[in-house]
Amino acid sequence: MQNILRKAPELEISQWMNTASDITLEGCLGKVVLIEAFQMLCPGCVEHGLPQAQKAYQLFSSDDLVVLGIHTVFEHHAAMGPESLKAFLHEYRITFPVGIDEPSKSGPIPKTMACYQLQGTPSLILIDRQGRLRRQKFGAMSDLQLGAEIMALIQEKPTKTDQRERQSHDHSQRKKLKGSGEQKGTCDETGCPV
Amino acid sequence: MQNILRKAPELEISQWMNTASDITLEGCLGKVVLIEAFQMLCPGCVEHGLPQAQKAYQLFSSDDLVVLGIHTVFEHHAAMGPESLKAFLHEYRITFPVGIDEPSKSGPIPKTMACYQLQGTPSLILIDRQGRLRRQKFGAMSDLQLGAEIMALIQEKPTKTDQRERQSHDHSQRKKLKGSGEQKGTCDETGCPV
Amino acid sequence: MQNILRKAPELEISQWMNTASDITLEGCLGKVVLIEAFQMLCPGCVEHGLPQAQKAYQLFSSDDLVVLGIHTVFEHHAAMGPESLKAFLHEYRITFPVGIDEPSKSGPIPKTMACYQLQGTPSLILIDRQGRLRRQKFGAMSDLQLGAEIMALIQEKPTKTDQRERQSHDHSQRKKLKGSGEQKGTCDETGCPV
Amino acid sequence: MQNILRKAPELEISQWMNTASDITLEGCLGKVVLIEAFQMLCPGCVEHGLPQAQKAYQLFSSDDLVVLGIHTVFEHHAAMGPESLKAFLHEYRITFPVGIDEPSKSGPIPKTMACYQLQGTPSLILIDRQGRLRRQKFGAMSDLQLGAEIMALIQEKPTKTDQRERQSHDHSQRKKLKGSGEQKGTCDETGCPV
Repeated sequence: MQNILRKAPELEISQWMNTASDITLEGCLGKVVLIEAFQMLCPGCVEHGLPQAQKAYQLFSSDDLVVLGIHTVFEHHAAMGPESLKAFLHEYRITFPVGIDEPSKSGPIPKTMACYQLQGTPSLILIDRQGRLRRQKFGAMSDLQLGAEIMALIQEKPTKTDQRERQSHDHSQRKKLKGSGEQKGTCDETGCPV
Repeated sequence: MQNILRKAPELEISQWMNTASDITLEGCLGKVVLIEAFQMLCPGCVEHGLPQAQKAYQLFSSDDLVVLGIHTVFEHHAAMGPESLKAFLHEYRITFPVGIDEPSKSGPIPKTMACYQLQGTPSLILIDRQGRLRRQKFGAMSDLQLGAEIMALIQEKPTKTDQRERQSHDHSQRKKLKGSGEQKGTCDETGCPV
Repeated sequence: MQNILRKAPELEISQWMNTASDITLEGCLGKVVLIEAFQMLCPGCVEHGLPQAQKAYQLFSSDDLVVLGIHTVFEHHAAMGPESLKAFLHEYRITFPVGIDEPSKSGPIPKTMACYQLQGTPSLILIDRQGRLRRQKFGAMSDLQLGAEIMALIQEKPTKTDQRERQSHDHSQRKKLKGSGEQKGTCDETGCPV
Repeated sequence: MQNILRKAPELEISQWMNTASDITLEGCLGKVVLIEAFQMLCPGCVEHGLPQAQKAYQLFSSDDLVVLGIHTVFEHHAAMGPESLKAFLHEYRITFPVGIDEPSKSGPIPKTMACYQLQGTPSLILIDRQGRLRRQKFGAMSDLQLGAEIMALIQEKPTKTDQRERQSHDHSQRKKLKGSGEQKGTCDETGCPV
């Protein structure tokens, strides 16, 4: 049987922020990708979506998870230009890379948003290590569920190429979560110290 | 190299609530087990630990995750007897099984709590499908991290016995999370419907 | 025209906690009284009502406002006895005086609760400086509204007797709120320092 | 002794939103005025200050309290122009009048902000019925305290002119709080209905 999961369409971005070089999904192959599609003047994005993405960015190892924001402006275009977005990211302490979704010439919906047929903001997209679209959700997802869905994709076998590169890596769960900040009472391969 | 992960010690419970029959870790083999050790008059348990365990109980499939509470009373014993606990579970809508940790004859720390050398309440314990102690944490863990840690254990290969029993099951991520409550925009093996 | 506001019925309390001597409404004449009627196993009381009463206890001057809790147990009586309440007040850091509503011989509703015809817990009662019942509310009231209602009663003219005792007091708003904790940028009678 | 409370300086506003006609403090004489000085890209304003001002706008009667926002932009000027503010007010459901603080020709601090010597955003200003500056606070104030401070000013005697106009009004506390939304169990001049 053939795998018919859809490949995630490439992002169409007019400008990147919070990153030294442009980012493509192609370049993220081998890692899981979490995309937070947002608008800076969308209350649900500011209260829930963006803080959640920032937490994921801090929790998971960058060897396993890439976190990206896409500024998918589909209303109040004049109010949410690049200058405004830059100040917003600074004030709200958003540190993961954010791309501005390429505006469309034919309507208010920008190109990536149209291509993924997003229903609005915030929307959350998960892409697996092989670049396939695995999850697309409009609105809020609980932290518990997002944590589980990300880890499920992280645990999937990487492609053969990735496997070769990663041969020497330790794929234990502990390695995949950075910065949990406590070692006391943490159990590892040798047991549970108290 | 030999696997030296420690087997999780069996629970010592004087009375079970919210379950028709008594529960043992032995009987949970093949599933991941999340144990929330709490006291009903512990503010951190009431505000964070117990609601989090209840959410995990609702989110994950009972085929993969068993959620248990243990009432590990180590102070104010007279204030937190079985009658009080029963009313508490009713009023706070705790629906997963809760066991009363067997009191010790020699001190205030009950038996299971002493055996696991818990530092206090709330404490969270994760046991893998093979019954091994994999995580023990005193205090709050974020929902994002707990979701990831549970899923990492769920994804681990079950024992051969379990594999045989589960042969016909679909182990896709979607099946492991029940009640996410939205199908629109959800991607599955055949793609992403909009 | 005659003032026909109802006098608040005296409390019927079997035991006081968090206070060296018993408290009566009669003894509170001249001050505004906020009563929080609660049950220790009532989630709405634990999450909202009691923290709100504790905040009022900390914010307003004890010269103006008396804050009292009444443990009005009308269900799960065996689970919420004096021993349990004592541990609860300790663990939840409730520091204002709390009285146990005198149980009734003829039914589950205790005496003060029956007398005030409270609809349930949490309930909030406000009594003015003259001992008159001015407000009775079942369920949550916003902090903004409660702050306003308390201050409205504090600002009312005290009785003649009180006036004599208080002659030398400064009744400025600033005096009525203790512990706001910031003097910088605070305006007073002489102006607004920066 | 002479009253030396400082008169609140008049606002310097380049443009008003959410109001049919321009607003002056002079025109607010006789009412208490709450001013929320904010920037649309200030997280503390979005999370705390503006929702609090909106709650006050909904709770108190417009006969007693005027709620105003002032957009005091002192950084990221290009990011927070009138077009952006307009979209922000729409998306965040801010319905009280908001004025744009007149930019200064000599520096980044706008005119009203400079005149009041505000320390930053959010800042909260309270002006009494006689137009005098009574409170100025940088940062968060609790709802309980703000409710109390507003009511303390509302209860102060209006000027003689106002008194004449208001002769026929009922100044009871109940009238000053609109929309509390519950009449059951509410005590008024005639007593406490159950």
